[in-house]
Amino acid sequence: MTATCPSRTSLARIANKWTAMVVIALSTGPMRFRDLRTGVDGISAKVLTETLRDLERDGIVTRHVYAEVPPRVEYELTALGRTLYVPLQALGHWAEEHFTEVLAARESYDARRRP
Amino acid sequence: MTATCPSRTSLARIANKWTAMVVIALSTGPMRFRDLRTGVDGISAKVLTETLRDLERDGIVTRHVYAEVPPRVEYELTALGRTLYVPLQALGHWAEEHFTEVLAARESYDARRRP
Repeated sequence: MTATCPSRTSLARIANKWTAMVVIALSTGPMRFRDLRTGVDGISAKVLTETLRDLERDGIVTRHVYAEVPPRVEYELTALGRTLYVPLQALGHWAEEHFTEVLAARESYDARRRP
Repeated sequence: MTATCPSRTSLARIANKWTAMVVIALSTGPMRFRDLRTGVDGISAKVLTETLRDLERDGIVTRHVYAEVPPRVEYELTALGRTLYVPLQALGHWAEEHFTEVLAARESYDARRRP
């Protein structure tokens, strides 16, 4: 995969922890901004706004504005977004399944480097 | 997945484009630093050094130093790293399979916003 390879531009977007967490959160159905902020704990409003705009631009998320007072705005995975959920979920499962090994490796690495 | 969820720390590392590209490059076998720089085109020496150190710390990559003149240093996926290759490869395939849709979505989005 080289710098000029066009698929790199999409890998750069999707291989991102916030993208992964937002897509995984939206996999259960449409969500409002504030519910996404709760679902993706630790994300700032600024980063969530930018992540959603990038995902909308890339055709992975759609934004629906309902003419209510106050206006209701919901975010939803597109058909393309639902296909992305599959490999991102696999990555999320890997993280859950192997984090104890990763943490043990880190402790061992840091212990070897301690003076 | 909340901020306090321990698997988030490993997702943060692996859901990263450079991690994905380095792990995918190493899937073919051990590589030297300069060959990785060629294989992961566009990566700077600094970012490659940091990515490899983080992956070594997380138990995903091992570093072998061979006592030759000049010393030969090779990087290789660990058993844990090879399990990570599976979901990252799926993500890479998604990027290759769907980048035309992503690019079309971007063009359409940008056209709607053009004055």
